[in-house]
Amino acid sequence: MSRLLIIGTGLIGGSFALAMRKAGCFARIDGCDADHAIAEKALHLGLIDGVVTDLSAAIEVVDAVLISAPTGAIAALVRQIDVIAGRRTVIVFDTGSAKGSVIEALRRGGRLPPTFVPSHPMAGSERQGPTAADADLFRGRRVFVTPQPETAQASIEQVRQWWTATGADVVETSAHVHDEMVALTSHLPHLIAFAFMSWVAQPHRADAGVFAGPGLRDFTRIAGSDASMWRGIFAENREAVLEQYDGWMETLTTVGRLLRESRFDELETVLAAAQLARASLQDELRD
Amino acid sequence: MSRLLIIGTGLIGGSFALAMRKAGCFARIDGCDADHAIAEKALHLGLIDGVVTDLSAAIEVVDAVLISAPTGAIAALVRQIDVIAGRRTVIVFDTGSAKGSVIEALRRGGRLPPTFVPSHPMAGSERQGPTAADADLFRGRRVFVTPQPETAQASIEQVRQWWTATGADVVETSAHVHDEMVALTSHLPHLIAFAFMSWVAQPHRADAGVFAGPGLRDFTRIAGSDASMWRGIFAENREAVLEQYDGWMETLTTVGRLLRESRFDELETVLAAAQLARASLQDELRD
Repeated sequence: MSRLLIIGTGLIGGSFALAMRKAGCFARIDGCDADHAIAEKALHLGLIDGVVTDLSAAIEVVDAVLISAPTGAIAALVRQIDVIAGRRTVIVFDTGSAKGSVIEALRRGGRLPPTFVPSHPMAGSERQGPTAADADLFRGRRVFVTPQPETAQASIEQVRQWWTATGADVVETSAHVHDEMVALTSHLPHLIAFAFMSWVAQPHRADAGVFAGPGLRDFTRIAGSDASMWRGIFAENREAVLEQYDGWMETLTTVGRLLRESRFDELETVLAAAQLARASLQDELRD
Repeated sequence: MSRLLIIGTGLIGGSFALAMRKAGCFARIDGCDADHAIAEKALHLGLIDGVVTDLSAAIEVVDAVLISAPTGAIAALVRQIDVIAGRRTVIVFDTGSAKGSVIEALRRGGRLPPTFVPSHPMAGSERQGPTAADADLFRGRRVFVTPQPETAQASIEQVRQWWTATGADVVETSAHVHDEMVALTSHLPHLIAFAFMSWVAQPHRADAGVFAGPGLRDFTRIAGSDASMWRGIFAENREAVLEQYDGWMETLTTVGRLLRESRFDELETVLAAAQLARASLQDELRD
Protein backbone atom coordinates (compact mmCIF):
# COMPACT_ATOMS: atom_id res chain seq x y z
CA MET A 1 0.00 0.00 0.00
CA SER A 2 1.24 3.42 -0.86
CA ARG A 3 1.24 6.93 0.48
CA LEU A 4 -0.60 9.94 -0.89
CA LEU A 5 0.09 13.61 -0.33
CA ILE A 6 -2.70 16.09 -1.00
CA ILE A 7 -1.68 19.68 -1.65
CA GLY A 8 -4.78 21.74 -0.97
CA THR A 9 -7.13 20.16 1.56
CA GLY A 10 -10.29 22.16 0.83
CA LEU A 11 -13.53 20.82 -0.64
CA ILE A 12 -11.99 18.97 -3.61
CA GLY A 13 -8.81 17.70 -1.96
CA GLY A 14 -10.70 16.79 1.22
CA SER A 15 -13.40 14.94 -0.73
CA PHE A 16 -10.75 13.02 -2.66
CA ALA A 17 -9.11 12.04 0.64
CA LEU A 18 -12.43 10.73 1.97
CA ALA A 19 -13.12 8.81 -1.24
CA MET A 20 -9.64 7.22 -1.11
CA ARG A 21 -10.17 6.18 2.53
CA LYS A 22 -13.54 4.64 1.61
CA ALA A 23 -11.96 2.75 -1.31
CA GLY A 24 -8.88 1.82 0.71
CA CYS A 25 -6.46 2.93 -2.01
CA PHE A 26 -3.71 4.29 0.24
CA ALA A 27 -2.06 3.23 3.46
CA ARG A 28 -1.60 6.82 4.56
CA ILE A 29 -2.80 10.22 3.35
CA ASP A 30 -1.00 13.41 4.35
CA GLY A 31 -1.97 16.91 3.43
CA CYS A 32 -0.93 20.52 3.37
CA ASP A 33 -2.52 23.78 2.34
CA ALA A 34 -1.32 27.31 1.60
CA ASP A 35 -3.67 28.20 4.46
CA HIS A 36 -2.27 26.12 7.32
CA ALA A 37 -5.55 26.34 9.29
CA ILE A 38 -7.32 24.50 6.45
CA ALA A 39 -4.86 21.60 6.65
CA GLU A 40 -5.25 21.48 10.45
CA LYS A 41 -9.03 21.49 10.02
CA ALA A 42 -8.78 18.60 7.53
CA LEU A 43 -6.67 16.68 10.05
CA HIS A 44 -9.11 17.44 12.85
CA LEU A 45 -12.01 16.20 10.69
CA GLY A 46 -10.12 12.97 9.97
CA LEU A 47 -9.78 13.63 6.23
CA ILE A 48 -6.01 13.21 6.39
CA ASP A 49 -3.61 11.37 8.71
CA GLY A 50 -1.09 14.14 9.10
CA VAL A 51 -0.27 17.72 8.20
CA VAL A 52 2.91 18.23 6.22
CA THR A 53 5.00 21.25 7.14
CA ASP A 54 8.14 20.38 5.16
CA LEU A 55 6.92 19.83 1.61
CA SER A 56 10.31 18.67 0.25
CA ALA A 57 10.70 16.04 2.99
CA ALA A 58 7.16 14.81 2.42
CA ILE A 59 7.65 14.41 -1.33
CA GLU A 60 10.66 12.21 -0.64
CA VAL A 61 8.48 9.59 1.07
CA VAL A 62 5.16 9.60 -0.84
CA ASP A 63 4.14 7.64 -3.94
CA ALA A 64 1.57 10.04 -5.31
CA VAL A 65 0.66 13.70 -5.02
CA LEU A 66 -2.73 15.23 -5.74
CA ILE A 67 -2.46 18.95 -6.42
CA SER A 68 -5.78 20.54 -5.54
CA ALA A 69 -4.42 24.07 -5.46
CA PRO A 70 -5.38 27.18 -7.46
CA THR A 71 -4.82 26.56 -11.17
CA GLY A 72 -2.15 29.27 -11.35
CA ALA A 73 0.00 27.47 -8.78
CA ILE A 74 -0.05 24.00 -10.35
CA ALA A 75 2.82 24.17 -12.86
CA ALA A 76 5.33 25.37 -10.25
CA LEU A 77 4.29 22.60 -7.85
CA VAL A 78 4.62 19.91 -10.54
CA ARG A 79 8.11 21.19 -11.37
CA GLN A 80 9.12 21.26 -7.70
CA ILE A 81 7.90 17.69 -7.12
CA ASP A 82 9.67 16.50 -10.28
CA VAL A 83 12.98 17.96 -9.09
CA ILE A 84 12.70 16.56 -5.56
CA ALA A 85 11.49 13.11 -6.66
CA GLY A 86 14.45 12.75 -9.06
CA ARG A 87 14.53 9.13 -10.20
CA ARG A 88 11.86 7.91 -7.76
CA THR A 89 8.43 7.46 -9.33
CA VAL A 90 6.01 9.91 -7.76
CA ILE A 91 2.77 10.12 -9.70
CA VAL A 92 1.36 13.63 -9.77
CA PHE A 93 -2.16 14.60 -10.79
CA ASP A 94 -4.26 17.69 -10.32
CA THR A 95 -7.82 18.99 -10.24
CA GLY A 96 -7.32 22.24 -12.15
CA SER A 97 -10.11 23.65 -14.32
CA ALA A 98 -7.77 24.60 -17.17
CA LYS A 99 -5.23 22.19 -18.65
CA GLY A 100 -3.48 23.89 -21.57
CA SER A 101 -1.86 26.70 -19.59
CA VAL A 102 -0.32 24.29 -17.04
CA ILE A 103 1.02 21.97 -19.74
CA GLU A 104 2.45 24.90 -21.73
CA ALA A 105 4.09 26.41 -18.65
CA LEU A 106 5.83 23.09 -17.92
CA ARG A 107 6.97 22.69 -21.53
CA ARG A 108 8.26 26.26 -21.56
CA GLY A 109 10.18 25.34 -18.41
CA GLY A 110 11.85 22.55 -20.41
CA ARG A 111 10.17 19.38 -19.17
CA LEU A 112 6.69 17.89 -18.87
CA PRO A 113 7.26 15.06 -16.36
CA PRO A 114 6.02 11.65 -17.62
CA THR A 115 4.58 11.03 -14.15
CA PHE A 116 2.29 14.08 -14.36
CA VAL A 117 -1.29 13.24 -15.39
CA PRO A 118 -3.39 16.40 -15.91
CA SER A 119 -6.91 15.76 -14.65
CA HIS A 120 -10.04 17.72 -13.85
CA PRO A 121 -13.11 16.46 -11.98
CA MET A 122 -16.38 18.17 -13.03
CA ALA A 123 -17.53 18.41 -9.45
CA GLY A 124 -17.62 21.20 -6.98
CA SER A 125 -19.91 23.25 -4.93
CA GLU A 126 -20.38 26.85 -3.93
CA ARG A 127 -19.71 25.48 -0.43
CA GLN A 128 -16.03 25.53 0.39
CA GLY A 129 -13.41 24.13 2.70
CA PRO A 130 -12.75 20.78 4.35
CA THR A 131 -15.99 20.86 6.37
CA ALA A 132 -17.92 20.54 3.06
CA ALA A 133 -15.84 17.50 2.00
CA ASP A 134 -17.93 14.53 0.87
CA ALA A 135 -16.69 11.01 0.01
CA ASP A 136 -19.34 10.88 -2.73
CA LEU A 137 -18.63 14.28 -4.30
CA PHE A 138 -17.22 12.66 -7.46
CA ARG A 139 -19.71 9.79 -7.69
CA GLY A 140 -21.41 9.82 -11.10
CA ARG A 141 -19.42 12.91 -12.15
CA ARG A 142 -17.06 13.04 -15.08
CA VAL A 143 -13.31 13.39 -14.56
CA PHE A 144 -11.37 14.54 -17.60
CA VAL A 145 -7.85 13.25 -18.03
CA THR A 146 -5.71 14.96 -20.67
CA PRO A 147 -2.49 12.97 -21.04
CA GLN A 148 0.27 14.29 -23.30
CA PRO A 149 2.70 12.45 -25.62
CA GLU A 150 5.26 12.68 -22.80
CA THR A 151 2.95 11.07 -20.21
CA ALA A 152 3.81 7.50 -19.13
CA GLN A 153 1.06 4.96 -19.80
CA ALA A 154 1.51 3.44 -16.33
CA SER A 155 0.91 6.82 -14.70
CA ILE A 156 -2.24 7.38 -16.75
CA GLU A 157 -3.58 3.94 -15.79
CA GLN A 158 -2.87 4.51 -12.11
CA VAL A 159 -4.59 7.92 -12.04
CA ARG A 160 -7.57 6.50 -13.94
CA GLN A 161 -7.88 3.77 -11.27
CA TRP A 162 -7.91 6.25 -8.40
CA TRP A 163 -10.52 8.49 -10.01
CA THR A 164 -12.61 5.45 -10.91
CA ALA A 165 -12.43 4.37 -7.26
CA THR A 166 -14.17 7.65 -6.29
CA GLY A 167 -17.17 6.57 -8.37
CA ALA A 168 -16.35 9.03 -11.14
CA ASP A 169 -16.62 8.38 -14.85
CA VAL A 170 -13.16 8.97 -16.37
CA VAL A 171 -13.05 10.48 -19.86
CA GLU A 172 -9.80 10.96 -21.80
CA THR A 173 -9.68 14.00 -24.08
CA SER A 174 -7.20 16.52 -25.42
CA ALA A 175 -6.26 19.54 -23.33
CA HIS A 176 -7.43 21.83 -26.12
CA VAL A 177 -10.90 20.28 -26.45
CA HIS A 178 -11.19 20.19 -22.67
CA ASP A 179 -10.33 23.86 -22.23
CA GLU A 180 -12.64 25.00 -25.00
CA MET A 181 -15.58 22.91 -23.81
CA VAL A 182 -15.31 23.81 -20.11
CA ALA A 183 -15.02 27.46 -21.16
CA LEU A 184 -18.45 26.93 -22.75
CA THR A 185 -20.12 24.75 -20.12
CA SER A 186 -18.60 26.08 -16.91
CA HIS A 187 -16.39 29.16 -17.15
CA LEU A 188 -18.68 31.33 -19.31
CA PRO A 189 -21.77 30.48 -17.20
CA HIS A 190 -19.83 31.51 -14.09
CA LEU A 191 -18.75 34.77 -15.74
CA ILE A 192 -22.36 35.49 -16.75
CA ALA A 193 -23.75 34.64 -13.31
CA PHE A 194 -21.13 36.81 -11.58
CA ALA A 195 -21.88 39.69 -13.98
CA PHE A 196 -25.61 39.23 -13.45
CA MET A 197 -25.28 39.37 -9.64
CA SER A 198 -23.04 42.40 -10.03
CA TRP A 199 -25.90 44.10 -11.90
CA VAL A 200 -28.48 42.97 -9.31
CA ALA A 201 -26.25 44.43 -6.57
CA GLN A 202 -26.51 47.89 -8.10
CA PRO A 203 -29.31 50.19 -6.82
CA HIS A 204 -32.79 49.32 -8.11
CA ARG A 205 -36.25 50.64 -7.34
CA ALA A 206 -36.85 48.00 -4.64
CA ASP A 207 -35.11 45.16 -2.83
CA ALA A 208 -34.38 42.44 -5.39
CA GLY A 209 -34.62 39.76 -2.70
CA VAL A 210 -38.34 40.48 -2.24
CA PHE A 211 -38.92 39.74 -5.93
CA ALA A 212 -36.67 36.69 -6.11
CA GLY A 213 -38.03 33.21 -6.69
CA PRO A 214 -36.60 29.72 -7.13
CA GLY A 215 -35.69 30.45 -10.77
CA LEU A 216 -33.35 33.25 -9.75
CA ARG A 217 -31.94 31.15 -6.93
CA ASP A 218 -30.87 28.36 -9.32
CA PHE A 219 -29.73 30.73 -12.06
CA THR A 220 -27.39 32.61 -9.70
CA ARG A 221 -26.21 29.72 -7.50
CA ILE A 222 -22.80 29.55 -9.21
CA ALA A 223 -22.25 33.28 -8.54
CA GLY A 224 -21.84 32.25 -4.89
CA SER A 225 -18.56 30.55 -5.85
CA ASP A 226 -15.24 31.78 -4.53
CA ALA A 227 -14.19 34.98 -6.33
CA SER A 228 -10.46 34.43 -5.79
CA MET A 229 -10.59 30.88 -7.16
CA TRP A 230 -12.52 32.05 -10.21
CA ARG A 231 -10.13 34.91 -10.85
CA GLY A 232 -7.49 32.20 -11.18
CA ILE A 233 -9.58 30.03 -13.50
CA PHE A 234 -10.43 32.99 -15.75
CA ALA A 235 -6.75 33.94 -15.86
CA GLU A 236 -5.61 30.40 -16.74
CA ASN A 237 -8.27 29.77 -19.40
CA ARG A 238 -8.59 33.38 -20.55
CA GLU A 239 -8.33 32.83 -24.30
CA ALA A 240 -10.88 30.02 -24.47
CA VAL A 241 -13.29 31.92 -22.22
CA LEU A 242 -12.99 35.06 -24.37
CA GLU A 243 -13.70 33.02 -27.50
CA GLN A 244 -16.90 31.65 -25.93
CA TYR A 245 -17.78 35.08 -24.56
CA ASP A 246 -17.52 36.67 -28.01
CA GLY A 247 -19.66 33.96 -29.61
CA TRP A 248 -22.32 34.17 -26.92
CA MET A 249 -22.34 37.99 -27.09
CA GLU A 250 -23.46 37.75 -30.70
CA THR A 251 -26.34 35.48 -29.70
CA LEU A 252 -27.31 37.71 -26.76
CA THR A 253 -27.18 40.82 -28.93
CA THR A 254 -29.41 39.16 -31.52
CA VAL A 255 -31.94 38.17 -28.86
CA GLY A 256 -31.89 41.72 -27.47
CA ARG A 257 -32.45 43.18 -30.94
CA LEU A 258 -35.41 40.87 -31.63
CA LEU A 259 -37.01 42.05 -28.37
CA ARG A 260 -36.25 45.74 -29.04
CA GLU A 261 -37.72 45.52 -32.54
CA SER A 262 -40.74 43.50 -31.29
CA ARG A 263 -39.89 40.68 -33.71
CA PHE A 264 -41.69 38.17 -31.52
CA ASP A 265 -42.08 35.36 -34.06
CA GLU A 266 -38.31 35.26 -34.58
CA LEU A 267 -37.73 35.63 -30.84
CA GLU A 268 -40.01 32.67 -30.12
CA THR A 269 -38.09 30.56 -32.67
CA VAL A 270 -34.87 31.24 -30.72
CA LEU A 271 -36.56 30.53 -27.38
CA ALA A 272 -38.05 27.26 -28.68
CA ALA A 273 -34.67 26.06 -29.97
CA ALA A 274 -33.13 26.94 -26.60
CA GLN A 275 -35.91 25.10 -24.75
CA LEU A 276 -35.28 22.04 -26.92
CA ALA A 277 -31.50 22.21 -26.36
CA ARG A 278 -32.09 22.43 -22.62
CA ALA A 279 -34.30 19.33 -22.77
CA SER A 280 -31.52 17.35 -24.53
CA LEU A 281 -28.99 18.58 -21.98
CA GLN A 282 -31.34 17.47 -19.19
CA ASP A 283 -31.39 13.97 -20.64
CA GLU A 284 -27.60 13.85 -20.61
CA LEU A 285 -27.44 15.21 -17.08
CA ARG A 286 -29.92 12.55 -15.99
CA ASP A 287 -31.60 14.75 -13.41
CA MET B 1 -69.89 29.01 0.00
CA SER B 2 -69.13 30.37 -3.41
CA ARG B 3 -68.16 29.19 -6.85
CA LEU B 4 -64.87 29.71 -8.62
CA LEU B 5 -64.09 29.55 -12.31
CA ILE B 6 -60.48 29.01 -13.40
CA ILE B 7 -59.58 30.08 -16.91
CA GLY B 8 -56.40 28.18 -17.73
CA THR B 9 -56.10 24.87 -15.89
CA GLY B 10 -52.38 24.23 -16.39
CA LEU B 11 -49.72 24.17 -13.67
CA ILE B 12 -50.64 27.48 -12.02
CA GLY B 13 -54.42 27.32 -12.38
CA GLY B 14 -54.45 23.64 -11.44
CA SER B 15 -52.27 24.21 -8.39
CA PHE B 16 -54.54 27.07 -7.26
CA ALA B 17 -57.55 24.76 -7.63
CA LEU B 18 -55.87 22.12 -5.44
CA ALA B 19 -54.89 24.71 -2.83
CA MET B 20 -58.47 26.03 -2.71
CA ARG B 21 -59.84 22.51 -2.27
CA LYS B 22 -57.39 21.89 0.56
CA ALA B 23 -58.37 25.17 2.24
CA GLY B 24 -62.08 24.63 1.54
CA CYS B 25 -62.56 28.14 0.16
CA PHE B 26 -65.11 27.28 -2.55
CA ALA B 27 -68.16 25.03 -2.83
CA ARG B 28 -67.42 24.30 -6.47
CA ILE B 29 -64.54 24.93 -8.86
CA ASP B 30 -65.06 24.85 -12.63
CA GLY B 31 -62.43 25.31 -15.26
CA CYS B 32 -61.74 25.86 -18.91
CA ASP B 33 -58.66 26.17 -21.06
CA ALA B 34 -57.89 27.39 -24.57
CA ASP B 35 -56.65 23.82 -25.05
CA HIS B 36 -59.76 21.80 -24.23
CA ALA B 37 -57.72 18.63 -23.57
CA ILE B 38 -55.96 20.42 -20.69
CA ALA B 39 -59.28 21.24 -19.03
CA GLU B 40 -60.45 17.63 -19.50
CA LYS B 41 -57.17 16.43 -17.99
CA ALA B 42 -57.65 18.75 -14.99
CA LEU B 43 -61.17 17.33 -14.53
CA HIS B 44 -59.88 13.77 -14.84
CA LEU B 45 -57.20 14.50 -12.21
CA GLY B 46 -59.84 15.90 -9.86
CA LEU B 47 -58.43 19.42 -9.87
CA ILE B 48 -61.78 20.87 -10.94
CA ASP B 49 -65.41 19.78 -10.62
CA GLY B 50 -66.46 20.51 -14.16
CA VAL B 51 -65.29 21.71 -17.54
CA VAL B 52 -66.94 24.86 -18.82
CA THR B 53 -67.77 24.97 -22.53
CA ASP B 54 -69.97 28.07 -22.55
CA LEU B 55 -67.86 30.77 -20.89
CA SER B 56 -70.62 33.42 -20.86
CA ALA B 57 -73.08 31.09 -19.16
CA ALA B 58 -70.45 30.07 -16.61
CA ILE B 59 -69.59 33.66 -15.71
CA GLU B 60 -73.27 34.27 -14.94
CA VAL B 61 -73.23 31.76 -12.09
CA VAL B 62 -69.78 32.10 -10.49
CA ASP B 63 -68.60 34.45 -7.74
CA ALA B 64 -64.95 34.63 -8.70
CA VAL B 65 -62.76 34.04 -11.74
CA LEU B 66 -59.04 33.29 -11.70
CA ILE B 67 -57.43 34.06 -15.04
CA SER B 68 -54.36 31.89 -15.40
CA ALA B 69 -54.03 32.44 -19.13
CA PRO B 70 -51.18 33.89 -21.22
CA THR B 71 -50.49 37.49 -20.17
CA GLY B 72 -51.49 38.82 -23.59
CA ALA B 73 -55.00 37.36 -23.25
CA ILE B 74 -55.81 38.72 -19.77
CA ALA B 75 -57.16 42.21 -20.53
CA ALA B 76 -59.72 40.94 -23.07
CA LEU B 77 -60.94 38.27 -20.62
CA VAL B 78 -61.32 40.80 -17.79
CA ARG B 79 -63.33 43.05 -20.10
CA GLN B 80 -65.54 40.16 -21.24
CA ILE B 81 -66.25 39.05 -17.66
CA ASP B 82 -67.03 42.65 -16.64
CA VAL B 83 -69.59 43.00 -19.43
CA ILE B 84 -71.28 39.67 -18.73
CA ALA B 85 -71.32 40.11 -14.93
CA GLY B 86 -72.98 43.50 -15.27
CA ARG B 87 -74.15 44.55 -11.78
CA ARG B 88 -73.41 41.17 -10.15
CA THR B 89 -70.17 41.15 -8.16
CA VAL B 90 -67.73 38.73 -9.78
CA ILE B 91 -64.24 39.13 -8.36
CA VAL B 92 -61.55 38.64 -11.02
CA PHE B 93 -57.87 38.09 -10.37
CA ASP B 94 -55.01 36.82 -12.49
CA THR B 95 -51.57 35.27 -12.33
CA GLY B 96 -49.88 37.24 -15.12
CA SER B 97 -46.17 38.05 -14.96
CA ALA B 98 -46.64 41.65 -16.13
CA LYS B 99 -49.16 44.01 -14.61
CA GLY B 100 -48.81 47.43 -16.26
CA SER B 101 -49.70 46.36 -19.79
CA VAL B 102 -52.95 44.66 -18.67
CA ILE B 103 -54.02 47.66 -16.54
CA GLU B 104 -53.21 50.10 -19.36
CA ALA B 105 -55.08 48.03 -21.94
CA LEU B 106 -58.18 48.04 -19.72
CA ARG B 107 -57.93 51.80 -19.08
CA ARG B 108 -57.50 52.44 -22.79
CA GLY B 109 -60.65 50.37 -23.29
CA GLY B 110 -62.44 52.85 -21.03
CA ARG B 111 -62.86 50.97 -17.73
CA LEU B 112 -60.73 49.20 -15.14
CA PRO B 113 -63.36 47.13 -13.27
CA PRO B 114 -63.30 47.69 -9.46
CA THR B 115 -63.66 43.92 -9.03
CA PHE B 116 -60.40 43.18 -10.89
CA VAL B 117 -57.42 42.60 -8.60
CA PRO B 118 -54.17 42.23 -10.58
CA SER B 119 -52.01 39.59 -8.91
CA HIS B 120 -48.90 37.56 -9.67
CA PRO B 121 -47.60 34.55 -7.72
CA MET B 122 -43.80 34.16 -7.85
CA ALA B 123 -44.11 30.43 -8.32
CA GLY B 124 -43.79 28.19 -11.27
CA SER B 125 -41.80 25.40 -12.65
CA GLU B 126 -40.29 24.32 -15.92
CA ARG B 127 -42.74 21.43 -15.58
CA GLN B 128 -46.04 22.24 -17.19
CA GLY B 129 -49.65 21.26 -17.35
CA PRO B 130 -52.27 19.99 -14.87
CA THR B 131 -50.31 16.80 -14.11
CA ALA B 132 -47.62 18.96 -12.48
CA ALA B 133 -50.20 20.75 -10.30
CA ASP B 134 -49.32 20.85 -6.60
CA ALA B 135 -51.49 22.11 -3.72
CA ASP B 136 -48.34 23.47 -2.08
CA LEU B 137 -46.89 25.23 -5.15
CA PHE B 138 -47.53 28.66 -3.61
CA ARG B 139 -46.61 27.78 -0.03
CA GLY B 140 -43.91 30.14 1.25
CA ARG B 141 -43.84 31.97 -2.12
CA ARG B 142 -44.64 35.64 -2.56
CA VAL B 143 -47.76 36.75 -4.38
CA PHE B 144 -47.72 40.36 -5.58
CA VAL B 145 -51.01 42.21 -5.64
CA THR B 146 -51.06 45.54 -7.49
CA PRO B 147 -54.42 47.21 -6.81
CA GLN B 148 -55.28 50.44 -8.61
CA PRO B 149 -57.18 53.53 -7.42
CA GLU B 150 -60.27 52.07 -9.11
CA THR B 151 -60.02 48.72 -7.29
CA ALA B 152 -62.63 48.05 -4.58
CA GLN B 153 -61.19 47.46 -1.12
CA ALA B 154 -63.50 44.49 -0.57
CA SER B 155 -62.20 42.80 -3.73
CA ILE B 156 -58.60 43.33 -2.65
CA GLU B 157 -59.30 41.85 0.79
CA GLN B 158 -61.04 38.83 -0.71
CA VAL B 159 -58.21 38.08 -3.16
CA ARG B 160 -55.64 38.53 -0.38
CA GLN B 161 -57.55 35.94 1.69
CA TRP B 162 -57.55 33.37 -1.10
CA TRP B 163 -53.86 33.76 -1.85
CA THR B 164 -53.07 33.64 1.86
CA ALA B 165 -55.05 30.40 2.07
CA THR B 166 -52.61 28.83 -0.43
CA GLY B 167 -49.81 29.43 2.08
CA ALA B 168 -48.39 32.32 0.06
CA ASP B 169 -47.03 35.55 1.47
CA VAL B 170 -49.06 38.40 -0.08
CA VAL B 171 -47.20 41.63 -0.83
CA GLU B 172 -48.95 44.76 -2.11
CA THR B 173 -46.92 46.92 -4.48
CA SER B 174 -47.37 49.22 -7.45
CA ALA B 175 -47.67 47.77 -10.94
CA HIS B 176 -44.69 49.85 -12.03
CA VAL B 177 -42.36 48.65 -9.27
CA HIS B 178 -43.58 45.09 -9.80
CA ASP B 179 -42.92 45.13 -13.54
CA GLU B 180 -39.49 46.69 -13.18
CA MET B 181 -38.39 44.32 -10.42
CA VAL B 182 -39.64 41.10 -12.04
CA ALA B 183 -37.94 42.24 -15.25
CA LEU B 184 -34.73 42.22 -13.18
CA THR B 185 -35.26 39.10 -11.07
CA SER B 186 -37.15 36.86 -13.47
CA HIS B 187 -37.60 38.06 -17.06
CA LEU B 188 -33.98 39.08 -17.74
CA PRO B 189 -32.58 35.84 -16.21
CA HIS B 190 -34.92 33.87 -18.47
CA LEU B 191 -33.81 35.88 -21.51
CA ILE B 192 -30.15 35.28 -20.61
CA ALA B 193 -30.67 31.56 -19.98
CA PHE B 194 -32.55 31.14 -23.28
CA ALA B 195 -29.81 33.04 -25.14
CA PHE B 196 -27.14 30.97 -23.43
CA MET B 197 -28.77 27.66 -24.39
CA SER B 198 -29.20 29.01 -27.91
CA TRP B 199 -25.42 29.51 -28.02
CA VAL B 200 -24.74 26.07 -26.51
CA ALA B 201 -27.00 24.55 -29.20
CA GLN B 202 -24.75 25.88 -31.95
CA PRO B 203 -21.95 23.59 -33.21
CA HIS B 204 -18.96 23.26 -30.88
CA ARG B 205 -15.84 21.14 -30.92
CA ALA B 206 -17.47 18.39 -28.81
CA ASP B 207 -20.79 17.44 -27.25
CA ALA B 208 -21.58 20.03 -24.56
CA GLY B 209 -23.52 17.43 -22.56
CA VAL B 210 -20.32 15.47 -21.90
CA PHE B 211 -18.76 18.56 -20.30
CA ALA B 212 -21.85 19.61 -18.35
CA GLY B 213 -21.97 19.52 -14.58
CA PRO B 214 -24.45 20.46 -11.86
CA GLY B 215 -23.55 24.16 -12.17
CA LEU B 216 -24.66 24.26 -15.79
CA ARG B 217 -27.79 22.27 -14.95
CA ASP B 218 -28.95 24.83 -12.38
CA PHE B 219 -27.84 27.84 -14.43
CA THR B 220 -29.88 26.73 -17.45
CA ARG B 221 -32.89 25.18 -15.71
CA ILE B 222 -35.16 28.16 -16.51
CA ALA B 223 -34.29 27.85 -20.22
CA GLY B 224 -36.41 24.70 -20.14
CA SER B 225 -39.48 26.92 -19.65
CA ASP B 226 -42.19 27.14 -22.28
CA ALA B 227 -41.04 29.28 -25.22
CA SER B 228 -44.53 30.35 -26.23
CA MET B 229 -45.41 31.48 -22.71
CA TRP B 230 -42.18 33.45 -22.46
CA ARG B 231 -42.70 35.08 -25.82
CA GLY B 232 -45.91 36.45 -24.29
CA ILE B 233 -44.22 37.64 -21.10
CA PHE B 234 -41.41 39.38 -23.02
CA ALA B 235 -44.02 41.04 -25.24
CA GLU B 236 -46.10 42.26 -22.29
CA ASN B 237 -43.19 43.55 -20.21
CA ARG B 238 -40.97 44.50 -23.15
CA GLU B 239 -39.99 48.00 -22.04
CA ALA B 240 -39.02 47.03 -18.48
CA VAL B 241 -37.07 44.01 -19.74
CA LEU B 242 -35.19 46.13 -22.28
CA GLU B 243 -34.29 48.64 -19.58
CA GLN B 244 -32.81 45.85 -17.44
CA TYR B 245 -31.15 44.29 -20.47
CA ASP B 246 -29.39 47.55 -21.35
CA GLY B 247 -28.18 48.06 -17.78
CA TRP B 248 -26.91 44.49 -17.51
CA MET B 249 -25.21 44.72 -20.92
CA GLU B 250 -23.02 47.51 -19.58
CA THR B 251 -22.00 45.33 -16.63
CA LEU B 252 -21.36 42.31 -18.85
CA THR B 253 -19.33 44.38 -21.29
CA THR B 254 -17.20 45.75 -18.44
CA VAL B 255 -16.55 42.25 -17.12
CA GLY B 256 -15.61 41.07 -20.62
CA ARG B 257 -13.22 44.00 -21.07
CA LEU B 258 -11.50 43.34 -17.73
CA LEU B 259 -10.92 39.73 -18.82
CA ARG B 260 -9.74 40.73 -22.30
CA GLU B 261 -7.30 43.27 -20.91
CA SER B 262 -6.12 40.84 -18.18
CA ARG B 263 -7.11 43.35 -15.47
CA PHE B 264 -7.51 40.55 -12.95
CA ASP B 265 -7.41 42.64 -9.77
CA GLU B 266 -10.37 44.69 -10.99
CA LEU B 267 -12.11 41.56 -12.25
CA GLU B 268 -11.73 39.89 -8.86
CA THR B 269 -13.24 42.98 -7.19
CA VAL B 270 -16.35 42.60 -9.38
CA LEU B 271 -16.51 38.83 -8.74
CA ALA B 272 -16.17 39.33 -4.97
CA ALA B 273 -18.99 41.92 -4.90
CA ALA B 274 -21.16 39.53 -6.92
CA GLN B 275 -20.35 36.65 -4.58
CA LEU B 276 -21.34 38.83 -1.62
CA ALA B 277 -24.58 39.92 -3.30
CA ARG B 278 -25.43 36.27 -3.99
CA ALA B 279 -24.86 35.43 -0.33
CA SER B 280 -27.32 38.17 0.75
CA LEU B 281 -29.85 36.94 -1.78
CA GLN B 282 -29.42 33.41 -0.43
CA ASP B 283 -30.32 34.66 3.03
CA GLU B 284 -33.52 36.25 1.70
CA LEU B 285 -34.43 33.13 -0.27
CA ARG B 286 -33.94 31.08 2.88
CA ASP B 287 -32.64 28.05 1.02
